[in-house]
Amino acid sequence: MKVPYFSHIVDERPGMVDISHKIPTLRCARAQVSLQCPNDLIELLKAGKPLNNKGPVFDTAIIAGTMAAKNTAHLIPLCHNIPLSSIKFEINYEATAVVISCEVKTQNATGVEMEALTGASIAALTVYDMCKSISSLVISDLRLVKKTGGKNDLGS
Amino acid sequence: MKVPYFSHIVDERPGMVDISHKIPTLRCARAQVSLQCPNDLIELLKAGKPLNNKGPVFDTAIIAGTMAAKNTAHLIPLCHNIPLSSIKFEINYEATAVVISCEVKTQNATGVEMEALTGASIAALTVYDMCKSISSLVISDLRLVKKTGGKNDLGS
Amino acid sequence: MKVPYFSHIVDERPGMVDISHKIPTLRCARAQVSLQCPNDLIELLKAGKPLNNKGPVFDTAIIAGTMAAKNTAHLIPLCHNIPLSSIKFEINYEATAVVISCEVKTQNATGVEMEALTGASIAALTVYDMCKSISSLVISDLRLVKKTGGKNDLGS
Amino acid sequence: MKVPYFSHIVDERPGMVDISHKIPTLRCARAQVSLQCPNDLIELLKAGKPLNNKGPVFDTAIIAGTMAAKNTAHLIPLCHNIPLSSIKFEINYEATAVVISCEVKTQNATGVEMEALTGASIAALTVYDMCKSISSLVISDLRLVKKTGGKNDLGS
Amino acid sequence: MKVPYFSHIVDERPGMVDISHKIPTLRCARAQVSLQCPNDLIELLKAGKPLNNKGPVFDTAIIAGTMAAKNTAHLIPLCHNIPLSSIKFEINYEATAVVISCEVKTQNATGVEMEALTGASIAALTVYDMCKSISSLVISDLRLVKKTGGKNDLGS
Amino acid sequence: MKVPYFSHIVDERPGMVDISHKIPTLRCARAQVSLQCPNDLIELLKAGKPLNNKGPVFDTAIIAGTMAAKNTAHLIPLCHNIPLSSIKFEINYEATAVVISCEVKTQNATGVEMEALTGASIAALTVYDMCKSISSLVISDLRLVKKTGGKNDLGS
Repeated sequence: MKVPYFSHIVDERPGMVDISHKIPTLRCARAQVSLQCPNDLIELLKAGKPLNNKGPVFDTAIIAGTMAAKNTAHLIPLCHNIPLSSIKFEINYEATAVVISCEVKTQNATGVEMEALTGASIAALTVYDMCKSISSLVISDLRLVKKTGGKNDLGS
Repeated sequence: MKVPYFSHIVDERPGMVDISHKIPTLRCARAQVSLQCPNDLIELLKAGKPLNNKGPVFDTAIIAGTMAAKNTAHLIPLCHNIPLSSIKFEINYEATAVVISCEVKTQNATGVEMEALTGASIAALTVYDMCKSISSLVISDLRLVKKTGGKNDLGS
Repeated sequence: MKVPYFSHIVDERPGMVDISHKIPTLRCARAQVSLQCPNDLIELLKAGKPLNNKGPVFDTAIIAGTMAAKNTAHLIPLCHNIPLSSIKFEINYEATAVVISCEVKTQNATGVEMEALTGASIAALTVYDMCKSISSLVISDLRLVKKTGGKNDLGS
Repeated sequence: MKVPYFSHIVDERPGMVDISHKIPTLRCARAQVSLQCPNDLIELLKAGKPLNNKGPVFDTAIIAGTMAAKNTAHLIPLCHNIPLSSIKFEINYEATAVVISCEVKTQNATGVEMEALTGASIAALTVYDMCKSISSLVISDLRLVKKTGGKNDLGS
Repeated sequence: MKVPYFSHIVDERPGMVDISHKIPTLRCARAQVSLQCPNDLIELLKAGKPLNNKGPVFDTAIIAGTMAAKNTAHLIPLCHNIPLSSIKFEINYEATAVVISCEVKTQNATGVEMEALTGASIAALTVYDMCKSISSLVISDLRLVKKTGGKNDLGS
Repeated sequence: MKVPYFSHIVDERPGMVDISHKIPTLRCARAQVSLQCPNDLIELLKAGKPLNNKGPVFDTAIIAGTMAAKNTAHLIPLCHNIPLSSIKFEINYEATAVVISCEVKTQNATGVEMEALTGASIAALTVYDMCKSISSLVISDLRLVKKTGGKNDLGS
């Protein structure tokens, strides 16, 4: 744990960080989230005729996540509004989970971890929405798994 | 697990559910999410002078979550855009977690579970954003904990 | 042609129509648009392995159109912001065109023709965006094909 | 001054008012704002050939104000998102001011004073934007001038 | 027709193009759309006292189109969110059509054809909305008419 | 008063200024607004136990103003959509007024005075919303107090 300094609090009030003197560089962040569900639902998403169904669920989730990542600064109050140069999703299965990762890139003076986390989060909520008539689900382990560029490079 | 019927898929394409013949009733849903973090951060959020700091973090999270709940239909593609009559947040501490719940009400022909889940999710991401300079965090166990009104009443 | 009265102009300035004394009823509108393109692209969209490709193009278009329909009042300045109870898309092929229709319903005091037209329009632009690296396209014949409910019922 | 009770604060945190048990009625609110500027600018806006110019300035202001009024719940955090049934603007001249009023109606369980104030405010900022290359301006006296419906009826 | 490669599909799922290694240059695109309507409506829009009416219709369309062009990345799912440096509209008459063109510029690593098409499209829908009480209309021939900068320079 | 030239009007229609050939530089603008209210409300906001209440009111106002500043180009029709590198608020008391200032920075080809004015304006409206159950308020004297960078540097 680093020094207990809240970067977004100024004189006991919330405040955006000033990045006006920082140099734009290539930044990348990847977030991952796990959507816990019964194996029955996993099989249904993977299987034969539902193979056709699978398309809409994951396509819809990717589109929702992509649009949310671009919209991050209008969702997370103290994020900077910046152009993003790439947003990519991967969706994989485990026995009782759908695992979604979202990777975001920018050429900018600030990182994009909140964009990656927001993209992954809204993609998971969209899968939840489209499967909730079939099964209850729990969204877990949303975390940052990669961050490059900027001073706190975590590597992959 | 109920019958494997994807309510949001029509002829193998994504599609919104038609609620035009449903009667508006009072609906309520509550979602809960847990933000895992070191006890040091919890103590910092709870303690003396940080008591002042606590305000901005949680106030900002509640405002972000409230605005996101109202914005759900523009984030989750197949949700209906409906007026909400109440959005309430509770934030509590555990030893190594901040627990956020979001309760939403509407007088409408469809439920508000996605609104409650979206509100809780964006509130948690906002706390993450404001604390990430101090500690790494993981967002877990986002789930529906209450749903009343409509045909699938889960009680509280 | 009816009497030359611009319903959205008041004292030579733009102005929204007052619907505060109108009774909510079930309204429905369907719009249709045609995306002109070479037959090669149609065959590519219909064919074998591209069958897999077809999914993303049309799923993305439907999601974009659905979200745009819900967003109509924030795009078309004098439209009323109203809850929509259903938004449905159909996508069909002709020899050198993709034909998209969008049907919208509401229980409200005003019609939803602009919502149907906006949904169809943005869906067509999304197909354009995803196919523009392959072929040039032209979006044509965007029109209202059905309107029911309210005083100017056009039937289907 | 009434009892010092902050309706939007719950347990020392911001919170939306629960209107789920209130009955929808016709509500109306009108706000007014004054844009202070030199008489030269007023004359320019009123005069001959600039009569043509006047159109774009005020049309743009009305459109911006109308869209902002519909967008109020996404700007003012604790406002309810509700359908509006009418938004009307009036723009008049004084010797050294442009006076803008915005009147909003709804059939709903909550009032629309924030919608009227937001509409007037963004309309005034739009006039400011379009005239700022000519003269400095000050936006003043934004206030509620009428509120009807609901329990605190102020009349006109 | 070029090689049948869908630039926005990755592993059979929709995906944004990565532009993080492209160099920003000046890009420009112009789109054009034709709004088919009876000559009576054209005469009404052009004529004497309606000359005053004309202002609100076209001013409103230009404002709506300008705001939509800036909003393109939140409408077309796989577009990049980028700052735009210019958005210009031209509106002309033919005997039975209103012709709208929208030209957009940016200093960026990606083109702005979708921004120009979206701006033209929403401007046409706004004219439709404001004239639909007078006459039925059809929106046709929305196409790209100019693209400069970037590798596929079409000239004007 | 400078030459009567409306920079945002082109051929008698509204139009955005073309900034595609301007060089990005560091720009800063600060706006200030005064919220007139009875001294009783000021005392309540400043005092003991209301000290706790003060937090939510001003935190909410700052968050709303910050989000509005980032959203300026979607509120003020002819503003350019640009990334902002800093948004800071200060809130001070006078005997019968709350004074809010908002300072915005960017590294861009255009200034940010409309962003600062919009941020201050929405922050003031948010305080209004949260205090209106206690007292009537008037929002006054919204003006630009500082502008640096660009050709019309006003200093501080």
